[in-house]
Amino acid sequence: MKNKKATSNWEKRLNLPSNWKERLHEIIYEADTPMGKWFDISLFIIIIISVILVMLESVEGIDVKYHSILLTLEWIITIFFTIEYVARIVCIGKPFKYIFSFYGIIDFVSTIPLYLSYLLAGSQALLALRALRLLRVFRILKLVRFLGEASQLTRALKASRAKISVFLYVVFILAVILGTLMYLIEGSVQNTGFTSIPTSIYWTIVTLTTVGYGDIAPQTILGQMIATVVMLLGYGIIAVPTGIVTMEFGKQETKKPKLGEQHFVHVNTQSCPNCSFEGHRDDADYCYNCGSEL
Amino acid sequence: MKNKKATSNWEKRLNLPSNWKERLHEIIYEADTPMGKWFDISLFIIIIISVILVMLESVEGIDVKYHSILLTLEWIITIFFTIEYVARIVCIGKPFKYIFSFYGIIDFVSTIPLYLSYLLAGSQALLALRALRLLRVFRILKLVRFLGEASQLTRALKASRAKISVFLYVVFILAVILGTLMYLIEGSVQNTGFTSIPTSIYWTIVTLTTVGYGDIAPQTILGQMIATVVMLLGYGIIAVPTGIVTMEFGKQETKKPKLGEQHFVHVNTQSCPNCSFEGHRDDADYCYNCGSEL
Amino acid sequence: MKNKKATSNWEKRLNLPSNWKERLHEIIYEADTPMGKWFDISLFIIIIISVILVMLESVEGIDVKYHSILLTLEWIITIFFTIEYVARIVCIGKPFKYIFSFYGIIDFVSTIPLYLSYLLAGSQALLALRALRLLRVFRILKLVRFLGEASQLTRALKASRAKISVFLYVVFILAVILGTLMYLIEGSVQNTGFTSIPTSIYWTIVTLTTVGYGDIAPQTILGQMIATVVMLLGYGIIAVPTGIVTMEFGKQETKKPKLGEQHFVHVNTQSCPNCSFEGHRDDADYCYNCGSEL
Amino acid sequence: MKNKKATSNWEKRLNLPSNWKERLHEIIYEADTPMGKWFDISLFIIIIISVILVMLESVEGIDVKYHSILLTLEWIITIFFTIEYVARIVCIGKPFKYIFSFYGIIDFVSTIPLYLSYLLAGSQALLALRALRLLRVFRILKLVRFLGEASQLTRALKASRAKISVFLYVVFILAVILGTLMYLIEGSVQNTGFTSIPTSIYWTIVTLTTVGYGDIAPQTILGQMIATVVMLLGYGIIAVPTGIVTMEFGKQETKKPKLGEQHFVHVNTQSCPNCSFEGHRDDADYCYNCGSEL
Repeated sequence: MKNKKATSNWEKRLNLPSNWKERLHEIIYEADTPMGKWFDISLFIIIIISVILVMLESVEGIDVKYHSILLTLEWIITIFFTIEYVARIVCIGKPFKYIFSFYGIIDFVSTIPLYLSYLLAGSQALLALRALRLLRVFRILKLVRFLGEASQLTRALKASRAKISVFLYVVFILAVILGTLMYLIEGSVQNTGFTSIPTSIYWTIVTLTTVGYGDIAPQTILGQMIATVVMLLGYGIIAVPTGIVTMEFGKQETKKPKLGEQHFVHVNTQSCPNCSFEGHRDDADYCYNCGSEL
Repeated sequence: MKNKKATSNWEKRLNLPSNWKERLHEIIYEADTPMGKWFDISLFIIIIISVILVMLESVEGIDVKYHSILLTLEWIITIFFTIEYVARIVCIGKPFKYIFSFYGIIDFVSTIPLYLSYLLAGSQALLALRALRLLRVFRILKLVRFLGEASQLTRALKASRAKISVFLYVVFILAVILGTLMYLIEGSVQNTGFTSIPTSIYWTIVTLTTVGYGDIAPQTILGQMIATVVMLLGYGIIAVPTGIVTMEFGKQETKKPKLGEQHFVHVNTQSCPNCSFEGHRDDADYCYNCGSEL
Repeated sequence: MKNKKATSNWEKRLNLPSNWKERLHEIIYEADTPMGKWFDISLFIIIIISVILVMLESVEGIDVKYHSILLTLEWIITIFFTIEYVARIVCIGKPFKYIFSFYGIIDFVSTIPLYLSYLLAGSQALLALRALRLLRVFRILKLVRFLGEASQLTRALKASRAKISVFLYVVFILAVILGTLMYLIEGSVQNTGFTSIPTSIYWTIVTLTTVGYGDIAPQTILGQMIATVVMLLGYGIIAVPTGIVTMEFGKQETKKPKLGEQHFVHVNTQSCPNCSFEGHRDDADYCYNCGSEL
Repeated sequence: MKNKKATSNWEKRLNLPSNWKERLHEIIYEADTPMGKWFDISLFIIIIISVILVMLESVEGIDVKYHSILLTLEWIITIFFTIEYVARIVCIGKPFKYIFSFYGIIDFVSTIPLYLSYLLAGSQALLALRALRLLRVFRILKLVRFLGEASQLTRALKASRAKISVFLYVVFILAVILGTLMYLIEGSVQNTGFTSIPTSIYWTIVTLTTVGYGDIAPQTILGQMIATVVMLLGYGIIAVPTGIVTMEFGKQETKKPKLGEQHFVHVNTQSCPNCSFEGHRDDADYCYNCGSEL
């Protein structure tokens, strides 16, 4: 199937000059052909390098020493991403659908900060937006098995959404009530850090979740006693989300055999050249969404 | 059913002037009519605003800058809550039942602090009681699905109450014994923070629950070795409440289909105008508690 | 059964003066008669007061202010416990069995520290041994339901003992290897706290168990990267004991109905006056261990 | 079987002088004969002592005081391990297979550091490599039951590997995005510790895993609000690995009876004298890997 298609593309290339859009689409958006795979792997490496560059720039010592090298590399990557972004728009059938899609926005936002930093004064802070490039990695990771596992996790989490909302709401109410109580008890003592109710609520959540920074800690006996209750509460109620998720996983597991294996078909990494929908069957010849030829 | 009732109320209003109590009851205590829904949503927003105000007041910088604005807003809200409180008493059949009910006390306690702060010297501390207004939100959140989830959680926790008590008791005994031991070892060393047995017990619970503030930390090798044991204990026994709750959830889950759907009926948000009991069936015409017409 | 026995004891008391041992045994060791219950409740309260006294003594401010009151109360309690200890030895058939039993040793060790502090110089530290009195509470808490829950927990923990040992061993090896690694990386940097391998291992366990005091924290980039790995490891492997215990609980649960209710008989709180064995059936007339009359 | 074999070895020893290799192999590599057991126990004790020595050396106070004693003991142990290493090479059929095996490398690396510290300047840091000796303990612990439990744990972890990878990847992406966000918010504030993106990511992982050192903590209200979200996220998603592992344990458990007991045979601790493969059946006469006589 794949080989046949690859050959037919090859044939088309020899005949029609207007075919370059289709070929570009196959390289950029798909991972079935050798070129497509090679492009995806290169993009993956460049994204990782680019994210590491953003991080290194933020380290003062490194930025001072290697500023010009980092800037040059950053310009190379930004230009590469700009070309890629333009190519993605050009070779797709419905460019606006791409531009306003989740990945379209991510691509745009993570490409422009360097340009903006020259155009607008004080937009240096936006440079950190380039860290969003990491999200682009998700698009490349079209590994079927990986996604299968992820979707199972996601389904279990979605099924327990209502229960988790109730749980978070109760935790939040608890934090507000207990935080206010701690402010009343410790607020008057000097240097304890319980300077306001929001700070006390922050401390309560730090304690309930068993994080425990220690930047704020109760000093009075009564405050320490209530802190003890908060800790034991936090230690105990961590069981609730765990119990919920474990149960959901159990249910997902027992559901699987009932569904029957025939309900699953193997999908490939092709995306429609017209509407960019993904998840086509291996034996599909037409897009299941817009009906244009794949 | 609802429409018919709404119409009949409308008819009554045109005929009888003494009917305002009944209408007021429907607006304040129920969420079936458009007015009732509108009232509940407004109340919800006012409560949230009021709680945020209480928090902002406690932040020194904000209180100094915007004291008069915050005080004015607080007076508006307090007067609104006072009117609401009086209305709730007036329009209900058995006012004392409301006044001494859980929400009646919450309503009263969260309304009076501002008055008290003028009447009594030194009652400024009571202003924080207004944070209890947050509890009022629970009354408004009569969302059936939400409560269904919550009640399932509550049932699972209630069923495992005895086991959790044993667990907490063992944790407490462990904390006392290990805390005393740590006091013996670290108490004589200067500046470790293990100044008394209660403080050492506090440290033990901080460590057992894996919170770990770091305000108190062992300095001697022996102390650190015992601290290591305490940590591993805490790391291990967190499995116990989790195991208990997960098992209970599992049981609740398998019980559900056995109960049969016919045991559940849909209840609405009406409350009896006479005795304020809630949870009436959709097709109920009389209160299941006192028999008065709904 | 109980009533009949109580009456027969009453009759015996009228007849035989040598019977006081038997009566004393019934009061001290059992909780079936009103006197026995009253004794147990009093003892429970005295133990709790005595443990609180030990704690308060260790708080410097309180000890300075109320030293004489605390000492007087402590003497009263110590004398009471001494009388009780002697009475326990006198009224039992096999005193040595009691003296060298777990509770016999606890009773002795938690009674003598005050005497020792006068006899031996420098034995003040032993005063904290009195905190062991708390363990005596377990003897009094012969509540059947409570113990039933506890024994279920204990059985589940015992069944997963081997798995938990493997787990703790792996955690310990991980801590030694990672601790040594951190010492190599951070040891040469000043003021990081990684001053020796044992301290680094201590830090690793503090981090693996997600306690995180913060008294020792990595400063180098490499150290922080390994710390990140340690944290994620700790965050992940907490799932292992939880999974083990949850599974064991599940097994205990499914086992229960298979055992059949007829395997359980109701045991009372009587203990044999001769050998002090406990757990006799309600309808037992002779000790199941030594055969002497109950 | 064992007795017969032991006798046959004994007979061989009387006859053939070249037999010492075979006997040495039996002592060093196996634990079936009394000599083999005795050797393993001695080795176990020496390894534990040696690891404790390495730790003590790193404690400055102890190293200064007892330097010569520690060095002498270290030399004794190093020489013992050198002899053992040579003996292991000599008595095995295929020495290179051992030398480049996992344990062969561990044995070599944990033996040479003391020699190197005299030969090479600045190789003192390598002395800590001796802590790897602890890994050798695993070879000795050929306790069947222990390994059975471990392998069950390992299987459960392996089965949930894909899910755990997805989970760790999501945690990592979350840490990068949230860390960058915190750097943007807190980076400009002085003395908060959010000095660079890598440090902020480090802080995010410290918080997500509920470790919470407190060396870096947000100071702004916005920073504390996002920190709260990070904590609740961490508190919630700890449920995911727990749920995964619990479910896997459950599956392992239900699988066991289906496999049938006949699939398991008892393996002994013998290793092939030629190729050093382990896990031979009790009734095996030839190595299942290379076919040479056991």
